[in-house]
Amino acid sequence: MSLEQAKQVAASRAVDEFVTNNCIFGVGSGSTVVYAVQRLAERVETENLKVTCIPTSFQAKQLIVKHNLVLGELDTNPEIDVTIDGADEVDSNLTLIKGGGGCLLQEKIVASCSKKLIVIADYTKDSAKLGDRYKKGIPIEVVPMAYVPIRNKIAALYGGELKLRSAVAKAGPVVTDNGNFILDWLFTNQDLDWETVDRNIKMIPGVVETGLFVKMCHKAYFGHPEGNVVERS
Amino acid sequence: MSLEQAKQVAASRAVDEFVTNNCIFGVGSGSTVVYAVQRLAERVETENLKVTCIPTSFQAKQLIVKHNLVLGELDTNPEIDVTIDGADEVDSNLTLIKGGGGCLLQEKIVASCSKKLIVIADYTKDSAKLGDRYKKGIPIEVVPMAYVPIRNKIAALYGGELKLRSAVAKAGPVVTDNGNFILDWLFTNQDLDWETVDRNIKMIPGVVETGLFVKMCHKAYFGHPEGNVVERS
Repeated sequence: MSLEQAKQVAASRAVDEFVTNNCIFGVGSGSTVVYAVQRLAERVETENLKVTCIPTSFQAKQLIVKHNLVLGELDTNPEIDVTIDGADEVDSNLTLIKGGGGCLLQEKIVASCSKKLIVIADYTKDSAKLGDRYKKGIPIEVVPMAYVPIRNKIAALYGGELKLRSAVAKAGPVVTDNGNFILDWLFTNQDLDWETVDRNIKMIPGVVETGLFVKMCHKAYFGHPEGNVVERS
Repeated sequence: MSLEQAKQVAASRAVDEFVTNNCIFGVGSGSTVVYAVQRLAERVETENLKVTCIPTSFQAKQLIVKHNLVLGELDTNPEIDVTIDGADEVDSNLTLIKGGGGCLLQEKIVASCSKKLIVIADYTKDSAKLGDRYKKGIPIEVVPMAYVPIRNKIAALYGGELKLRSAVAKAGPVVTDNGNFILDWLFTNQDLDWETVDRNIKMIPGVVETGLFVKMCHKAYFGHPEGNVVERS
């Protein structure tokens, strides 16, 4: 069984467990969420479910539209029943690193409006400590004019290296769906109190959001190549 | 003496006291700062000073350019010696409300990179408690998609009323220089711990910055109609 199939079984399991009729559903971003939306569309069709979908990115919105699901927004649905999203790494306390795909801001906004955040991922994202498996660091979304002083301040606070994320199909930095830059913080100390780190970094003026999701995740499903799903809550 | 002259004497006093040769100077926004930049331009000309100016808004940038001053940015000058800026209200602890002109985000970024933040204002901004004199509330800059849940969360935390700031010369909301919306929070409890309030509000995903400046202001100059300037530090 491939890694893609591992993602798919985790996604289906989560959708089957948490999506109910008349629910407001947050749609995460990334490669694993594609399978969740496929499974959701199947269930909506066969069970005739009413589900309103709130996207966390342009990609999520496209998925919702492609599958003819009902598109909603936070203006009219500020309270979401459940959001299913991927993650780049999940530690033993269900602290997450998110934002490898650059959608951390909208993902965190939608998660913060959700009664439950459910993470779906393949087994390679399952980690004891942040940094054990994911080596690309913690993404930090920043106002463009402030990226240099923010970089200096975080390095002074906690060390490590901060790299301005570069775009691939254009010259210069990645610009997020909200017009900001991303600093990828390659931290070296894995034993930090992530709740404090998240707060101290977000309080720096010009930081829009961090990719640290602390005490937000309700349950995680990790798909394995053998076809089984490991749950953690 | 008029209110405009009161602003002018405060501005000149601050520029004369804090601007030195070869300094990196943060230029605030608003009507009082206009006088500070005028005075700075006079001093640069007559004393042949070298000063690099970092703007806090499009308005500030225009002022710098108009007066032929040296325009810098945080990318090359992440450490600023002194920033002179206005405020909508200054309480007895030098806690500020800023953002009546919608430039709070860049103002707070520049202030956070400054060794000293000096406030210049007319006497009507001088207040014992926040809310005593300024009745338009605390501006909170937010990501547009999240303004409804943020409004609900702040009201649930602290009460009061939150109004989406409306534009005048276009239909719809004010859009800031950074593409965000502003919620004006008409708080009712004047006895809050503003440092905690600032932190709790900024930690809400989708909040980009608040107009509360706590423990950032080094000194304030209040111009009076009699021509005198009251200082507080």
